[in-house]
Amino acid sequence: MDRKAAEIGALEKENETQQDQEEQVVNPWEVSAKEGGKIDYDKLIDKFGCQRLDPSLIDRVERLTSRRAHIFLRRGVFFAHRDFNDILDAFERGEKFYLYTGRGPSSEALHLGHLIPFMFTQYLQEVFKVPLVIQLTDDEKFLWKNLTVEECRRLARENAKDIIACGFDIRRTFIFSDFDYVGGAFYRNMVEISKRVTCNQVVGIFGFIGEDHIGKYSFPPVQAAPSFPSSFPHLFSGKDNLRCLIPCAIDQDPYFRMTRDVAPRIGYHKPALIESLFFPALQGETGKMSASDPNSAIYVTDSEKDIKNKINKYAFSGGQDSIEKHRQLGANLEVDIPIKYLSFFLEDDAELEHTKKEYGAGRMLTGEVKQRLIEVLTKLVERHRRARAAVTDEMVDAFMAVRPLPNMFN
Amino acid sequence: MDRKAAEIGALEKENETQQDQEEQVVNPWEVSAKEGGKIDYDKLIDKFGCQRLDPSLIDRVERLTSRRAHIFLRRGVFFAHRDFNDILDAFERGEKFYLYTGRGPSSEALHLGHLIPFMFTQYLQEVFKVPLVIQLTDDEKFLWKNLTVEECRRLARENAKDIIACGFDIRRTFIFSDFDYVGGAFYRNMVEISKRVTCNQVVGIFGFIGEDHIGKYSFPPVQAAPSFPSSFPHLFSGKDNLRCLIPCAIDQDPYFRMTRDVAPRIGYHKPALIESLFFPALQGETGKMSASDPNSAIYVTDSEKDIKNKINKYAFSGGQDSIEKHRQLGANLEVDIPIKYLSFFLEDDAELEHTKKEYGAGRMLTGEVKQRLIEVLTKLVERHRRARAAVTDEMVDAFMAVRPLPNMFN
Repeated sequence: MDRKAAEIGALEKENETQQDQEEQVVNPWEVSAKEGGKIDYDKLIDKFGCQRLDPSLIDRVERLTSRRAHIFLRRGVFFAHRDFNDILDAFERGEKFYLYTGRGPSSEALHLGHLIPFMFTQYLQEVFKVPLVIQLTDDEKFLWKNLTVEECRRLARENAKDIIACGFDIRRTFIFSDFDYVGGAFYRNMVEISKRVTCNQVVGIFGFIGEDHIGKYSFPPVQAAPSFPSSFPHLFSGKDNLRCLIPCAIDQDPYFRMTRDVAPRIGYHKPALIESLFFPALQGETGKMSASDPNSAIYVTDSEKDIKNKINKYAFSGGQDSIEKHRQLGANLEVDIPIKYLSFFLEDDAELEHTKKEYGAGRMLTGEVKQRLIEVLTKLVERHRRARAAVTDEMVDAFMAVRPLPNMFN
Repeated sequence: MDRKAAEIGALEKENETQQDQEEQVVNPWEVSAKEGGKIDYDKLIDKFGCQRLDPSLIDRVERLTSRRAHIFLRRGVFFAHRDFNDILDAFERGEKFYLYTGRGPSSEALHLGHLIPFMFTQYLQEVFKVPLVIQLTDDEKFLWKNLTVEECRRLARENAKDIIACGFDIRRTFIFSDFDYVGGAFYRNMVEISKRVTCNQVVGIFGFIGEDHIGKYSFPPVQAAPSFPSSFPHLFSGKDNLRCLIPCAIDQDPYFRMTRDVAPRIGYHKPALIESLFFPALQGETGKMSASDPNSAIYVTDSEKDIKNKINKYAFSGGQDSIEKHRQLGANLEVDIPIKYLSFFLEDDAELEHTKKEYGAGRMLTGEVKQRLIEVLTKLVERHRRARAAVTDEMVDAFMAVRPLPNMFN
């Protein structure tokens, strides 16, 4: 799993059967827009068959939780869903559900895009007071990347610290590494799922080819299994009817389309999904946020100086070439990265609206907007760094211990 | 795993890419001779690329173990191998090895063919004084048969009783069910193997097709993993260099060809193999020993009366149609099932030779040979039944406990 809210364009993979040069490609390992353009999310919703998260649903969340909706809901970062309304119906009836999200631990340091699903999931856990399972797919990273098993396991633990730093409630949260946790009831569910998905189906869904190793063909059931409560007997024994809600970036939808197809055939609810946009690269939405180019993203390990440099130097501006022209025409907010980033992370709705208005009208300059973004991100990164530094190995062990969570629904 | 020393011809599977109507087919799920003929084992050895187990190797086993070779070696039941000589070299140098065999638990009662690899493995364990792991592939049976996970797990335990009844040494034997044991180090090895086998390769080796579910594509690494000592950290921790010898029927060779290809690439010895013929159906070597026809095989649960009836009624005779003709022409030993069965199970070499000579010359009648076979098998089945009745649930738990075996090499 790489719930990358982040990588626009990634792997260049020769996959002619799947990839029409003219079309955008979105799957768990590749996100690339149509030549020279941006990801067309409306088209993606149509193609995947999920639903737009409309304002009435957001209002309903606010009513049910008696709290203002999370910024990522208000700003349309989480913009699509599958059966999220059913989760809310059930919640309204007094039924509980559980959350499931995850990360493929392929790098030491997370960037801002990686934090998005965790920040949002932390909010969901807090307002709905529900248990959460977080899958670290170290097996997937071993299968797809040139890393050893031990390196992937180490990265899983390192990434767990960043995840814990997002503020999850240890009384309601179980974090697990596949290399350590797969087995028993979880493995039995993997096999139940595997029996109900054909090779042709995974080829159609994921674009695997004959030269791909069978590790790839075997993996989708590993990511599907946590959608079923019986994969966690220490948490949900006897609760096979419990619903599951999965917050993730929309590139993960193929896994869960497959899972939803299988679910009723093995006696479970289809997992519900709430899906986010991708977080754009500093170079702009048509650019690539690449692990090999540290200047394409802000990392949670970046210093104040790094952040300042990266934003000033690389953040693609929609402002005009000269101050005169800018004052006259204003900034093109559609392509402006500082404005995009502020819309993800600047809490104050009024300030954001004001900034967009002034900047769009040419009364604010790129430098001023960038300065505000530097402040916002420095604060965010600094807060994360402090929180992560406070996460001890004992806390990681505690979150990852296979244990009952007696108060997870309280 | 279905180390069926037993099923000549089995599933009728439409697999035109693999199955040339003219040719014999031998893979883990189908064993069928060329139309109207018998399995051509020489051709199989050529095709698979394994070696004949020649008399000098059997002599060497006798010298090294200071004991007469097992009847299945003397009679050529175990007739092929891969690197068995390397195992003997290592043993001679004072190096240890471990044994690995298994069974796919798809039926309540075992038939005689199922017992062959276990009887032979028990002998190997006894004379070489080495540890043994026995894999019960309940996951495979769930994937290939119309059974529930729970039914497969139940059958695994039931079959474990029959296996224990073969006389394995609890100080040197670990029996495990995949559904219970897969995980941790074993799962990590599965993933290491999966990464090194392409989809095209498993299609070539096993004949899978696009309509097959991905459970099938995922399974070969599960059967491969026990070939590597690190899959059993409670037994072989720090002994990554330990060699593995696998006694099995030759239809399992494809799994281990794949495993041997992967082994050096992940730092292990290639597992050695010692491979048996198939045990023929009562109806003859061209007939099918089918799970759906109880009259095609002798089961370890058959009563004395069942055995008598089955052999008298169904065991294909190479004798002539009339006594006169029989006295004149003698029996055709090549197709005679009572003689085949006696050659598997009649310990006394001299008696077997005598019987073959007299019967082949027409001086013995089919009825007399069948009578002797009934005696031999009744004794064998009766002994097994008594041994199995003595196997308690506590003994099954003890053999299947994940535990160190401190005296396994003594």
